[in-house]
Amino acid sequence: MDIYFDNSATTKPYEEVIKAVGDGMREYFGNPSSLHKIGIKCEKRLTECREYISSTIKSDKDEIYFTSGGSEGNNFILKGLLKPGHHFITTSFEHGSIINTCKELEDKGVKITYLDVDQYGNISLEDLEEAITKDTVLVSIMYVNNEMGAIQNIEEIGKLIKEKSTRARLHVDAVQAYGKFDINVKKMNIDFLTVAGHKIHGPKGVGFCYIKKGIVLNPLVSGGEQEKGLRAGTVDLPSIIGLQKAAQITFDHKDETYKKVYELKKYMIERLKEIDDIRINSPLEGNFSPYILNVSFRGVRSEVLLHLLEEQNIYVATGSACSSKVSMSKGSYVIKALGLNAKEIESAIRFSFSYENTKEEVDKAIEVLKGSLIFLRRVRR
Amino acid sequence: MDIYFDNSATTKPYEEVIKAVGDGMREYFGNPSSLHKIGIKCEKRLTECREYISSTIKSDKDEIYFTSGGSEGNNFILKGLLKPGHHFITTSFEHGSIINTCKELEDKGVKITYLDVDQYGNISLEDLEEAITKDTVLVSIMYVNNEMGAIQNIEEIGKLIKEKSTRARLHVDAVQAYGKFDINVKKMNIDFLTVAGHKIHGPKGVGFCYIKKGIVLNPLVSGGEQEKGLRAGTVDLPSIIGLQKAAQITFDHKDETYKKVYELKKYMIERLKEIDDIRINSPLEGNFSPYILNVSFRGVRSEVLLHLLEEQNIYVATGSACSSKVSMSKGSYVIKALGLNAKEIESAIRFSFSYENTKEEVDKAIEVLKGSLIFLRRVRR
Repeated sequence: MDIYFDNSATTKPYEEVIKAVGDGMREYFGNPSSLHKIGIKCEKRLTECREYISSTIKSDKDEIYFTSGGSEGNNFILKGLLKPGHHFITTSFEHGSIINTCKELEDKGVKITYLDVDQYGNISLEDLEEAITKDTVLVSIMYVNNEMGAIQNIEEIGKLIKEKSTRARLHVDAVQAYGKFDINVKKMNIDFLTVAGHKIHGPKGVGFCYIKKGIVLNPLVSGGEQEKGLRAGTVDLPSIIGLQKAAQITFDHKDETYKKVYELKKYMIERLKEIDDIRINSPLEGNFSPYILNVSFRGVRSEVLLHLLEEQNIYVATGSACSSKVSMSKGSYVIKALGLNAKEIESAIRFSFSYENTKEEVDKAIEVLKGSLIFLRRVRR
Repeated sequence: MDIYFDNSATTKPYEEVIKAVGDGMREYFGNPSSLHKIGIKCEKRLTECREYISSTIKSDKDEIYFTSGGSEGNNFILKGLLKPGHHFITTSFEHGSIINTCKELEDKGVKITYLDVDQYGNISLEDLEEAITKDTVLVSIMYVNNEMGAIQNIEEIGKLIKEKSTRARLHVDAVQAYGKFDINVKKMNIDFLTVAGHKIHGPKGVGFCYIKKGIVLNPLVSGGEQEKGLRAGTVDLPSIIGLQKAAQITFDHKDETYKKVYELKKYMIERLKEIDDIRINSPLEGNFSPYILNVSFRGVRSEVLLHLLEEQNIYVATGSACSSKVSMSKGSYVIKALGLNAKEIESAIRFSFSYENTKEEVDKAIEVLKGSLIFLRRVRR
């Protein structure tokens, strides 16, 4: 039996989603841009999806733009808005699709301020306030960090930005937050939001951006008039139907799943006390997501532990999957930002949960962890 | 019974593709970037898909980069390669994802030459030769035009470019050609190629680019190290598996389908002789694809005819689906480029075929066309 504790990397699609995608490929194979009935039927179904999705973040349906996923979404907003001379504020713990885009933007003459985070992964509102200047066009903050699960107070951040500047806009990378935490784009003063389908048991290759009405930005993918000219390319309606289905199931069980996962994390932290010389990097208290439990097992290298766990069919991560193969050697920049020492960085493991995980799985993981650590720490000595 | 003659807009996925995507979502839900066995299993399956796809265009597997489709592919190559001061050559009949990207590139200081086409939709090799300068970095030519089906002689074009310049690269938008016409990137001297899955009865939201080994360009979607850092974002393996399946079925039946569709087009042209005052814009002779039959029905507006046909469940197009809703009012720029007169432009209908279409469907279409045209032309008088 597989124990999949890597739900922040990607999730197993709901069976209903797989069915919805298949049915969509059969019944809605048309091109929503076509002028005939088959196209119009697809266009209508697309609008239904757009309406449902908009309801989940309390936006207007015309503010939803479907994309191929989170990385495209983040690139779309940043590259579409920021021009040479603009000032951009972000943090040192964003996803690679923000951080690596920043490097390109800096080369093009965008000035960037990177906010630091404290040991709990929170930015300081004072730092943010100080950083905002008259040239600040955009602030981009991850709602829930993908490696540690640190949650930012988006509502406070949104409020502060609006008070401090009439120009600066707020972009929220909500890939790890959507379907888990409340998002109300109006109440939170969010101007842009990025979401990916595959983190909520939906299809891969699909996601959406929210773009507040009235904001002008350039498309990343230019061409046809799909998504009001802001995202060209034949609309992938079957995947969007799958995304809608995943969102529906996720939101229908949101509170219940949250509670279940919270209890699971609490239980695992409790049981981890049986293991010596560890550090819980994303404790229950503080602003950490219950969906993510990051733990350092001092004295072992995380990738070695990862492989010992997978031998027992327990699947975890050492950091973000998107940068796993490089971060392995140099240590995750996110974990570094949190101020862990070298020993703690090199031994950090991320357990990330879903509605499917159970206490029995945690028990099995603890048992395997104990055995592996005795072995690894003995070898080291 | 639906008669779907709009296969250039999009195609109905093969039932085997729908099954492959569903199975893929179940069995290969993992993230190929993950370090554990589930990730490695996905990575391995991804490599199999890459190998198969590369074999269809005679490239190396490391030269295949999966994307979200044709529009992204075209944007990726053009925006990734062209910088201010560069010279770029293309034609006046490219897809919107090239033409609209050109406008953005011109604003950024890229110099662009648009080659004209003759009445058969062919560029002149002399024009191309004259256009190439020492600043020419890229030539982008559509293999098969999406509205008229005009086929360019890519092998001659590739040869000419290599003879004339050591710097200029050739990009081929093969979205309407892949699976229908031979593509050998080495023999044809192609440096970049763009393909979309949904035109060959594959899934939407997936496609690939071929990028010749050794060429450096910037990613459109930056972030993780997926696709060797050139296309960030969690790999949509289930759709790629579906794309592979679609390609396999398409290539296994390539010659057979070509013959069938050729006979169908021939038959329809023969039967169209029963209708007065028409112009066959993509005849059998000349370099036109058998998959596309473009006809002007003089004296009627194409969108009116389109709607009369759809009332009888016959689905056609007036132009490219991607720009259908705008081109309706101003007439397609592609058709204009071919030198048709105003009457012929406003009355052009595209019939585009697949392996599923039959002579009986053509008979039914001819019957409905006759009735509709008698009605429309009488109303007009």
